[in-house]
Amino acid sequence: MGGDHGPSVTLPACRRFLDHHPDVDFLLVGTAAAIDAARDWPRCTLVFATEVVAMDDGVEVALRRKRDSSMRVAISQLKPLPGTDESAADVCVSAGNTGALMALARYVLKTFEGIDRPAIAAPLPNMRGGFTQVLDLGANVDCSAEHLLQFAVMGSALVSALEGKDQPSVGLLNIGEEAIKGGETIKRAGDLLRAAAAAGQINFHGNVEGNDIFKGTTDLVVCDGFVGNVLLKTAEGLAGMMGQFIKQEFSRTPLSKLAALVAMPVLRRFKDRVDHRRYSGGALLGLRGLVFKAHGSSDAFAFENALVRGYDAARNRLLDRVHDRIRNTLAVLPEGLARAGNLADSDSDASAEAA
Amino acid sequence: MGGDHGPSVTLPACRRFLDHHPDVDFLLVGTAAAIDAARDWPRCTLVFATEVVAMDDGVEVALRRKRDSSMRVAISQLKPLPGTDESAADVCVSAGNTGALMALARYVLKTFEGIDRPAIAAPLPNMRGGFTQVLDLGANVDCSAEHLLQFAVMGSALVSALEGKDQPSVGLLNIGEEAIKGGETIKRAGDLLRAAAAAGQINFHGNVEGNDIFKGTTDLVVCDGFVGNVLLKTAEGLAGMMGQFIKQEFSRTPLSKLAALVAMPVLRRFKDRVDHRRYSGGALLGLRGLVFKAHGSSDAFAFENALVRGYDAARNRLLDRVHDRIRNTLAVLPEGLARAGNLADSDSDASAEAA
Repeated sequence: MGGDHGPSVTLPACRRFLDHHPDVDFLLVGTAAAIDAARDWPRCTLVFATEVVAMDDGVEVALRRKRDSSMRVAISQLKPLPGTDESAADVCVSAGNTGALMALARYVLKTFEGIDRPAIAAPLPNMRGGFTQVLDLGANVDCSAEHLLQFAVMGSALVSALEGKDQPSVGLLNIGEEAIKGGETIKRAGDLLRAAAAAGQINFHGNVEGNDIFKGTTDLVVCDGFVGNVLLKTAEGLAGMMGQFIKQEFSRTPLSKLAALVAMPVLRRFKDRVDHRRYSGGALLGLRGLVFKAHGSSDAFAFENALVRGYDAARNRLLDRVHDRIRNTLAVLPEGLARAGNLADSDSDASAEAA
Repeated sequence: MGGDHGPSVTLPACRRFLDHHPDVDFLLVGTAAAIDAARDWPRCTLVFATEVVAMDDGVEVALRRKRDSSMRVAISQLKPLPGTDESAADVCVSAGNTGALMALARYVLKTFEGIDRPAIAAPLPNMRGGFTQVLDLGANVDCSAEHLLQFAVMGSALVSALEGKDQPSVGLLNIGEEAIKGGETIKRAGDLLRAAAAAGQINFHGNVEGNDIFKGTTDLVVCDGFVGNVLLKTAEGLAGMMGQFIKQEFSRTPLSKLAALVAMPVLRRFKDRVDHRRYSGGALLGLRGLVFKAHGSSDAFAFENALVRGYDAARNRLLDRVHDRIRNTLAVLPEGLARAGNLADSDSDASAEAA
């Protein structure tokens, strides 16, 4: 139901994905009117909900008021069935309201032991021809050093599940020597990450700067959610501006329009390389269930890519990997992570969970 | 002496600038060997220093050890001559080590009353064909709400001095609704900025996100120095990657190389529009003297642009404008700004200054 375009985009994407993945069974969640068109699809079960979380609904509305929303019903499919450790679905993919999705997923699924806060990770393209996973991208505004360590451990599990790398390199986002004052959280996070690396838990590269994301200096970059969200939107904004400038320059004069015709195949290949729809699909990490988030503005191509990403993650046992890694790191660094559990946490859901 | 290329870049840039600005008198500061080539330049006085702050020198080295550095001597030209309120120079421009420049400028010149911390502001190009000034870009890692208000007031003075706008619009950098937790500092900064706007001191637009910088939603965007530095380097990194991708695609095959030839004039105009050398020249704001910083990697074109920016600022009395605006805002919002002065400040220079 979610995203800026709703079922007109998600349904065709689901159908294509289903046709290309004969090993997949689908649970399609939505209002009866919206998903009825999929009634006769193969390997597809319709699951009805009566409400929809709107893109501009606040977290409170999603949590307290719309108790039968398609988003909540979809997430609930990941919960173990009573008396088993099997669940109806292995992964949930949504293009809906990010804040609501994170809050509902956290409330319904809970976090793993040792994880204070879930994080959102998404890939950005780099000059090496691959992707740099960046987290957190907006779930947590104020992060402690321990949270940043948890992000590094979860992000490592994500990259090894999606890209098959055993020990992905981790960069800690920091700023250059321009800083007169040190950021205490970042410094302490560096200490924790070095300790985890010394214990063989992660492959810590050291500090990186904003440009290293696009250089591909490390496989993943960890930062707090405020910074991550700003850098993501800055990158989107700049890419949009540069695309517009190219378009303007190629349509300025009759001669430049002619040049555009000649250059069109090349420009199209360039556009494909920086097309953010190709790397659609952020992962919500740290939860007892796999949730993927497609960009709200997704078209069918982007949403299908998010489905593929979720499918790959489920097939490569991302959930177990995150769980194992966190448990191992907890065992080796008991003190550092134990401290994180004692942090004052103003979020009521998290407190309830800790209790 | 500064920058990655030193006098081989700065001297030709200075000479060109001098030739184009017959109303300017120059004080050229450097080691005797390095600046001797300018001995016979018109309207140019050589000022000798015996030491040079290296690009990788720490702040302590610049402050305590190299007491006769060209950077320190240059900044000292801005101090009032004994018994007068005239100074030898109106503005100082350097491509040197940013951390050292900020620390020395702060130590030698001191900040204005009402300013706790100086900030670095620099323009980024936007889709409206103009520039968005962003501050702080790396001088202050941890900023309070009061600091963000001071940045807004100083940035408004900068835009009105450089672009002639009387009431530039101010955006407060924040993140979308994805945030489960609010950033207390940002929320309080919003309150202060609204209060300053209600008192007619600034033209506050409200919250903006990373992409608004390139949309040109507001004339200036304020944020803390950590976030500002990350977003600046993210933008540089992404622009570099996109430039490389374009180059790669246009040189992939004989046919695409042919397309490159045809498209060359258009691609060149595009490159000019996003050329960061065009908007070289960050302003150090809040000090009792005008200091401009060119990018360390500046070539002669970029360094000359930084000189032009410094010249424009001096001619348009940027220093007086910042001072006036801060004083006026202080008068209207005594409580809000007074609180800022009481903040614990771990920086010894700032404490010494306060004492």
